[in-house]
Amino acid sequence: MIPFTPKDSTPKNLLVSREHQSSATVVAVGETLFGGEEFPVIAGPCAVESAHQLLKTASGVCLSGARGLRGGAFKPRTSPYSFPGLEEEGLQLLALAREKTGLPVFTEVMSELQVELVSQYADVLQIGARNMQNYPLLRAVGRQRRPVLLKRGMAATLKEFLLAAEYILAEGNPHVILCERGIRTFGQDTRNTLDISAIPILKERTHLPVIVDPSHACGLSEVVPHLAKAALAVGADGLIVEVHHQPSLALSDGRQSLDLPAFHDMMVSLRALAPAMQRKVYTTMSPLRATG
Amino acid sequence: MIPFTPKDSTPKNLLVSREHQSSATVVAVGETLFGGEEFPVIAGPCAVESAHQLLKTASGVCLSGARGLRGGAFKPRTSPYSFPGLEEEGLQLLALAREKTGLPVFTEVMSELQVELVSQYADVLQIGARNMQNYPLLRAVGRQRRPVLLKRGMAATLKEFLLAAEYILAEGNPHVILCERGIRTFGQDTRNTLDISAIPILKERTHLPVIVDPSHACGLSEVVPHLAKAALAVGADGLIVEVHHQPSLALSDGRQSLDLPAFHDMMVSLRALAPAMQRKVYTTMSPLRATG
Amino acid sequence: MIPFTPKDSTPKNLLVSREHQSSATVVAVGETLFGGEEFPVIAGPCAVESAHQLLKTASGVCLSGARGLRGGAFKPRTSPYSFPGLEEEGLQLLALAREKTGLPVFTEVMSELQVELVSQYADVLQIGARNMQNYPLLRAVGRQRRPVLLKRGMAATLKEFLLAAEYILAEGNPHVILCERGIRTFGQDTRNTLDISAIPILKERTHLPVIVDPSHACGLSEVVPHLAKAALAVGADGLIVEVHHQPSLALSDGRQSLDLPAFHDMMVSLRALAPAMQRKVYTTMSPLRATG
Amino acid sequence: MIPFTPKDSTPKNLLVSREHQSSATVVAVGETLFGGEEFPVIAGPCAVESAHQLLKTASGVCLSGARGLRGGAFKPRTSPYSFPGLEEEGLQLLALAREKTGLPVFTEVMSELQVELVSQYADVLQIGARNMQNYPLLRAVGRQRRPVLLKRGMAATLKEFLLAAEYILAEGNPHVILCERGIRTFGQDTRNTLDISAIPILKERTHLPVIVDPSHACGLSEVVPHLAKAALAVGADGLIVEVHHQPSLALSDGRQSLDLPAFHDMMVSLRALAPAMQRKVYTTMSPLRATG
Repeated sequence: MIPFTPKDSTPKNLLVSREHQSSATVVAVGETLFGGEEFPVIAGPCAVESAHQLLKTASGVCLSGARGLRGGAFKPRTSPYSFPGLEEEGLQLLALAREKTGLPVFTEVMSELQVELVSQYADVLQIGARNMQNYPLLRAVGRQRRPVLLKRGMAATLKEFLLAAEYILAEGNPHVILCERGIRTFGQDTRNTLDISAIPILKERTHLPVIVDPSHACGLSEVVPHLAKAALAVGADGLIVEVHHQPSLALSDGRQSLDLPAFHDMMVSLRALAPAMQRKVYTTMSPLRATG
Repeated sequence: MIPFTPKDSTPKNLLVSREHQSSATVVAVGETLFGGEEFPVIAGPCAVESAHQLLKTASGVCLSGARGLRGGAFKPRTSPYSFPGLEEEGLQLLALAREKTGLPVFTEVMSELQVELVSQYADVLQIGARNMQNYPLLRAVGRQRRPVLLKRGMAATLKEFLLAAEYILAEGNPHVILCERGIRTFGQDTRNTLDISAIPILKERTHLPVIVDPSHACGLSEVVPHLAKAALAVGADGLIVEVHHQPSLALSDGRQSLDLPAFHDMMVSLRALAPAMQRKVYTTMSPLRATG
Repeated sequence: MIPFTPKDSTPKNLLVSREHQSSATVVAVGETLFGGEEFPVIAGPCAVESAHQLLKTASGVCLSGARGLRGGAFKPRTSPYSFPGLEEEGLQLLALAREKTGLPVFTEVMSELQVELVSQYADVLQIGARNMQNYPLLRAVGRQRRPVLLKRGMAATLKEFLLAAEYILAEGNPHVILCERGIRTFGQDTRNTLDISAIPILKERTHLPVIVDPSHACGLSEVVPHLAKAALAVGADGLIVEVHHQPSLALSDGRQSLDLPAFHDMMVSLRALAPAMQRKVYTTMSPLRATG
Repeated sequence: MIPFTPKDSTPKNLLVSREHQSSATVVAVGETLFGGEEFPVIAGPCAVESAHQLLKTASGVCLSGARGLRGGAFKPRTSPYSFPGLEEEGLQLLALAREKTGLPVFTEVMSELQVELVSQYADVLQIGARNMQNYPLLRAVGRQRRPVLLKRGMAATLKEFLLAAEYILAEGNPHVILCERGIRTFGQDTRNTLDISAIPILKERTHLPVIVDPSHACGLSEVVPHLAKAALAVGADGLIVEVHHQPSLALSDGRQSLDLPAFHDMMVSLRALAPAMQRKVYTTMSPLRATG
């Protein structure tokens, strides 16, 4: 259907392709389903900073209807002198937040050597944009059983993105969620440029679920809810959003983090939009645990 | 609100700025209003090719709820040997189609020397992406009274886009509609990359209405309806869409043109989405004239 | 030789193509030849500001070996409120500077309506990057006899660039000099990104001379001489460089303008490099007139 | 000297910065010196394919004056189904070629887990563009003693590039050579866009040597020698070039690989240009060993 030029064509017989599997893959993370009728929203801070920060934020997003908790324990930082994350302590806090809220944990793994450790705590292993073509890491997460959230590289074509996912499937792990998070262009008004067209094109070419990260896409918290609605309307299968209970105090990415009331408002507006898209956006999944 | 870097900052005292005028400008084109509650869709062929083609297409889009007719009489073509448009004959056909359907006419003007001629036939003068920084042309359309549809240049920053509009307002014409139509990036999966984030950021910085051209943005007819829905959800003030009654026979842009049934389906899905965005998408405005 | 994809292929039978004319076109501007053994350097201020400024700068660059004088009388400015140039008075000053120095004058024309006026004063009509796809303007300079300096658009492919030149040749004017001046990319360390590879590829595809504008390419005066040497080494046919006798006082582009001693040093280093490239970089062409 | 915007500014106190160390770092690889008067050219095939291919190519480039041998044993491939390289057998062949020619070996390491193995065979560990922000890998090569050749990521800013190098220095390894290899832009006429301006700007900001990979930059063997000359003229400290004794039979990157006669011609032309740049391009370093 898409008129490939020879140069950009994705081979037709890939495991990720619609030619190989016409029906949509639904990736289950606990009760949360990616790729079906549900439009799950994963939310949480850029980095796990403390028990207080994580539990405050996790409880808040849970009450507003988040269906997964994001948070970085191992942080890829442009500078070697920036906060690298709390590492294993961060993973332990994520597990604690899961216990308190019931939300499954999404967190990044940066190295083959961390896969075993991170998979002991996380429900979903995230591969960041900088590592989209770190092939040994892709193979390593392909050899274990946790679902994988694969972010598009900042200058990756859709073919390169799908071939990166293919590395994971080729090792035997079919539970891959793709994530469009903005590409690098001449534009300097936003942190990156959300490539909204990528979502319908990816969904045409692959059976894997495709979600959107509006926070990294624009880098501006006031723009995030607009992009979130656009993502739902364009046919994405969910969102991953940065939320912090006190964005102005965040150790990283504060400028793009929603505070809890803004996150709540965004969820309300998504819920209003969802029926016209034949989608469901949940309200809180487990209020007792969320407030526990 | 948007944290400008000094380099990209838009001067605060521009006529186009929210600082200068906080309330939204509503541009009226006949009964069609841009910048208010309505979400108008302008539709029609890339180029006016013949009376048959234009009237068939115009009637069709009118019946499905289009609120303006687009069509090129003077075509900017990359090659000097490509079809240049029917020129004045094309303008006459557009006027005829307006008479038959009641739809106001949006058509491009490429040169200062054409402004007087085109404004005799057109309801709205369009400035194409290639001419966004053709300053004598901007001044010329600023000195006449027709509303102007200004397309963003393919590598223009938002500041440059707003300053191009400022040229028109500075000459005394406040009736300017901005149009995001995709930017040029490394991506080759689509003709351009729709910069969906530009819409909320522009609407923050300017009081002018902002519409989206999903056809040029992606270049793929099957992707257009998805982008149309995203544009509505992100807060755009309308659409301009390429439609041809027989896309496979179009003299230009056939690959990105919707046929009439696809356009109709798109309008239905926009109408379903609009209430959640507090927007109105009209059904046909004047059925008698449309079928006349 | 270059493996075109269908999308980007330049038609083989264009007037600009090597297939149409295998021998190099040499464009003569007075005694200065573009496209032959000579490596001419055109120099001068961004904008003509005053007789004093222009004559000081023109005399200085002439003494150091410049073979043409650049200077804007009609300036395309991003903002309608920026200095627009001295217009006809600027043209008169350029003619005066030519009389004093013997240097032929290169200056921009922004509109069809200015072509006749500008061609009364200028030796070469320059089409700026913003107007590379202003087709009526291209046709207008194609219908008169002055040589044309055509700058590449900031997001133009090489095919689009060559087709823009084709517009001029198709109207009967074969005296076209192409100019690579940097493209817009994600890079923010320089004003634009000099696409140095474009020079050998253009020279493979077309018989027209190709020069480089290192000033707009990088926007940084201290980087200009390095790019100038790279342009000579890569096979370009000349340079156009911004020089101001007092860059810190320039009304525009001061940051990228060489002062006269830096220009002189650059010319010395080009002269050292030229023999290895089988090129000639002249010393002053007419010392008596230059000092007159 | 370069006017940083706050966003892009490189911290002034980095180990890589000129502020920290004003004198140029000279990285010694056997007798070959990067960052001094010498302009060393590293050459060899994209991938090590066989003993015959490697020895033929290595002997050929050595006789023409190459001062290092490149060749991939572990290949990062976009598709999991492409030739991954000969792995350890490839490293053994590289060591054999070094023995025969005396050329030091430059080869890529893709994973922390390969560092120890690769450093047993290689003289210089190469970090590819895809791994420029693979921080655990950067730290791993920073903890061993081999010099590191760090390639710029395809969408990396100069600040990000320098901070990636900082990761290596911060672990205690000061022997880092930077390599500009083209960035990803809208341009499709070449594989990437060589950012030639990056070289003088990097050399202003850092004391580390900076070389150029013209092969990956353009992807076209006939353009490579032109870019090689431009790199020398712009002030680069050397080259890394793909050469294959039979490019049409290469398992990867054949289109951009020079054959041996073309490499020889390129070296002759570099040698002609070098004196004007106060550089030395060697003829063969050890003819007896090269022909051995």
